[in-house]
Amino acid sequence: MELTLREIADSVGGDVIGDDKTVVTGINSLDEASCGEISFFSDPRYRASVKKTDASALIVSKVTDLYQGPQVVVLNPALTYTRVATLFASPIPTYPGISDQAVVHKSSRIGRSSSIYPLVYIGEGAIIGEDVVLFAGVFIGDRVKIGDRTVIYPNVTILQDCIIGNDVIIHSGTVIGSDGFGFVKDGSTSVKVPQMGIVQIDDQVELGANNCVDRAAMGKTWIKRGVKTDNLVQIGHNVVIGEDTIVVAQVGISGSVRIGREVMIGGKAGFADHVEVGDRAMIGGGAGVIQSISPGEIVSGSPTMPHRLWLKTSGLIRRLPQFNDRLRALEKEVDELKRRLD
Amino acid sequence: MELTLREIADSVGGDVIGDDKTVVTGINSLDEASCGEISFFSDPRYRASVKKTDASALIVSKVTDLYQGPQVVVLNPALTYTRVATLFASPIPTYPGISDQAVVHKSSRIGRSSSIYPLVYIGEGAIIGEDVVLFAGVFIGDRVKIGDRTVIYPNVTILQDCIIGNDVIIHSGTVIGSDGFGFVKDGSTSVKVPQMGIVQIDDQVELGANNCVDRAAMGKTWIKRGVKTDNLVQIGHNVVIGEDTIVVAQVGISGSVRIGREVMIGGKAGFADHVEVGDRAMIGGGAGVIQSISPGEIVSGSPTMPHRLWLKTSGLIRRLPQFNDRLRALEKEVDELKRRLD
Amino acid sequence: MELTLREIADSVGGDVIGDDKTVVTGINSLDEASCGEISFFSDPRYRASVKKTDASALIVSKVTDLYQGPQVVVLNPALTYTRVATLFASPIPTYPGISDQAVVHKSSRIGRSSSIYPLVYIGEGAIIGEDVVLFAGVFIGDRVKIGDRTVIYPNVTILQDCIIGNDVIIHSGTVIGSDGFGFVKDGSTSVKVPQMGIVQIDDQVELGANNCVDRAAMGKTWIKRGVKTDNLVQIGHNVVIGEDTIVVAQVGISGSVRIGREVMIGGKAGFADHVEVGDRAMIGGGAGVIQSISPGEIVSGSPTMPHRLWLKTSGLIRRLPQFNDRLRALEKEVDELKRRLD
Repeated sequence: MELTLREIADSVGGDVIGDDKTVVTGINSLDEASCGEISFFSDPRYRASVKKTDASALIVSKVTDLYQGPQVVVLNPALTYTRVATLFASPIPTYPGISDQAVVHKSSRIGRSSSIYPLVYIGEGAIIGEDVVLFAGVFIGDRVKIGDRTVIYPNVTILQDCIIGNDVIIHSGTVIGSDGFGFVKDGSTSVKVPQMGIVQIDDQVELGANNCVDRAAMGKTWIKRGVKTDNLVQIGHNVVIGEDTIVVAQVGISGSVRIGREVMIGGKAGFADHVEVGDRAMIGGGAGVIQSISPGEIVSGSPTMPHRLWLKTSGLIRRLPQFNDRLRALEKEVDELKRRLD
Repeated sequence: MELTLREIADSVGGDVIGDDKTVVTGINSLDEASCGEISFFSDPRYRASVKKTDASALIVSKVTDLYQGPQVVVLNPALTYTRVATLFASPIPTYPGISDQAVVHKSSRIGRSSSIYPLVYIGEGAIIGEDVVLFAGVFIGDRVKIGDRTVIYPNVTILQDCIIGNDVIIHSGTVIGSDGFGFVKDGSTSVKVPQMGIVQIDDQVELGANNCVDRAAMGKTWIKRGVKTDNLVQIGHNVVIGEDTIVVAQVGISGSVRIGREVMIGGKAGFADHVEVGDRAMIGGGAGVIQSISPGEIVSGSPTMPHRLWLKTSGLIRRLPQFNDRLRALEKEVDELKRRLD
Repeated sequence: MELTLREIADSVGGDVIGDDKTVVTGINSLDEASCGEISFFSDPRYRASVKKTDASALIVSKVTDLYQGPQVVVLNPALTYTRVATLFASPIPTYPGISDQAVVHKSSRIGRSSSIYPLVYIGEGAIIGEDVVLFAGVFIGDRVKIGDRTVIYPNVTILQDCIIGNDVIIHSGTVIGSDGFGFVKDGSTSVKVPQMGIVQIDDQVELGANNCVDRAAMGKTWIKRGVKTDNLVQIGHNVVIGEDTIVVAQVGISGSVRIGREVMIGGKAGFADHVEVGDRAMIGGGAGVIQSISPGEIVSGSPTMPHRLWLKTSGLIRRLPQFNDRLRALEKEVDELKRRLD
């Protein structure tokens, strides 16, 4: 892939300072860029790196005199960098058409431009759109629907009746539509509550590796447009996650939790069942959410408290030994004072 | 599926109030039930829903005048609902016989009524009972034994010599019989301790998706009858879990932990190795169990403490800033008193 | 497998006390050993077991008179036990050559002595060494390189361009080379940062089941020689883990974290992104590492503090209700003193 700086600047809406015919063949970090590659500078902590980079061009938010080569000036260098990297990124490796070593039920319908690797299983009545990629080891259950341009990495399992939108990415080992965890006690025995619902995953969702998304007891577990999850995330039955919410690795979301849109959930946070989280709330890593969180609230800790309070208490917890000493000293002094007064 | 209210009432031992010839075609929540469906009412919080439900019949613990249609009166409506839902639930989708696109070692023995999907691997000397379902992507190692009516979902791995009972359900991505995590240091190098034991899973166990159950160093890791685990649970080598114990998502159980029967373990709880947990203990979500827990104890926190104490301390931790202020105020006042007395 | 005590002693460098022609056919714990088996005794807590063991020989650190049979005296009985167990352990079950039910791209190169099970997928230009075992359900992406004697268990996914060394073991369900979790906000939308790097796993690494190791945004995520991870571990993009570091189950390591050599990381610990951990540090189970840790430091808690301080604070947290009572009592007494002085 070769692009001139002019072509790059035009595609991201930036101004070129310097030679706009410079040819760019790739993108890299300041320290690792070599001749022909473009890099990116906006954080002043990287001043030393920018001085000695071998990059042939830079994306910047304002022109810097620390660098002699041509510069593309843009409003949002991080976003621009991402868009330029996308130009140079390798495409998803596809398989030409439907492999005859895949196992595809004759009643399923698959878009002509889709790529079905060997060792894929596709069940009865499944419907798969155009430009979809299903890697080896993917299991698609009966009547599953998958939209266009969705990529499903190796060894993903999508069980019967689940619905996956357009432009979805699901990383390896993730399970969609396993049974929700529901039992009713009959004496000491746990009787299984049949899990009769589905999982619905809307457009532009990306799920990390080894996630679990359980099907609803009734109705649907619903992951809305633009949600991104990291690896090893647990999403229980009947959970609803709003648009553009971010879920970091190893988060656990219990049954029937409702999470709003554009929420940020830090790694390893856990949620008790049925809690609600308002839009644009922020939940710290490792938080234990046992009560509902209002829109825009910023919380941390287990159980959660306002993030600023958590910062204070975290600092004070390590001073508990001194607290104890101070209490003891006070008790002595008060006793002494009493004795003197008596 | 169509059943009369009389047939339903007879199958669960309930009394019909109203027309027992009412035909029921499905089951649903109060809010989503439509004509022909039966629903369920016992929690007074759902009074508003019961008034406007379209359900054609209700399962109730006592007759309600909020609803005009026929009612089935039972002792335990939650359990009855579960049993009725099971009548209407779709059966597990099976494959007719042993697929010739499965890879089955000729020395293995498989029950005639079992369902082996394409892309299953079954190793040397494996023995599989009747009415078993193995979905695509399942790996069954050499000499594995599986009882009757067990269902193993896609992409599950069961390694050599492990033993799985009757009526077991194992959800997708779960690994049974991976090596326990055992090393001995030789200088800075970690020398692997061979893991020579097995995993034994008894009847009626259900394991969630993406669980890991390690084989024993020697002897067996043992999950007893009726245990239910949620998703992403870690079970180390030589762990024993007693009958009917419930393990919620993302729990981590270290090597050689022994857990009693009917224990409840909340999500994300972790256990140090070798601890013991008595029968019917309850362990809160996120608890860190570093000491043994007595039968019937209810604990929370990390490290664990009695649940009631944990409730108190959780409340008090957020008051640490005030504690600090109060200590400082007291110190000032005591100084002042001393000065006045001197 | 049959070995004389003399052969065993010679292979581990020990002295035989008693009959060195004793034939040993296996190894077992003191309680479960039967005639013909060798066992191991060094911890005095097992005195009762050693008195009644049926083992035909013992490995000991010094001769014991609690046992009448022959004894092999060695410097490090735990390490010797491991080496002897390895002599008796079953070999990894292999498949003869490359199965014709595997899907192997014609451009890949595979060592003649390697074992490729049915239902393996190997992509374009992959290079696989000698004596490698790939179990069924393994996915090897395009241009992946795998060294000699590496064992990859069922349903592991290794995505394009990743590099795996010699003598590596990867347990089932683990994913190597999934995309790192990187997004840049464009308004409320998350724009995916292309993940253009790889994962490199050096010699003698062992990764547990259902791990996730993300590929680097640029450059590589790097797991160095001798690292051992337990199950369900998350390793983010651009993480570097030093030689011989031990990572217990359910640990989460965020992007760009750098961990030194011979570090011990307890189960469920979590790391904020970009933190650094020095060589030979020890991090307690469940720790929340949000700041860098110096070499040799021993920390626990969330956020981390020195382990000894954590022990104290953990004890004091459960005394918070008394602290509160003591504060209240002091406040009353000081008020009373003030009144008496006024």
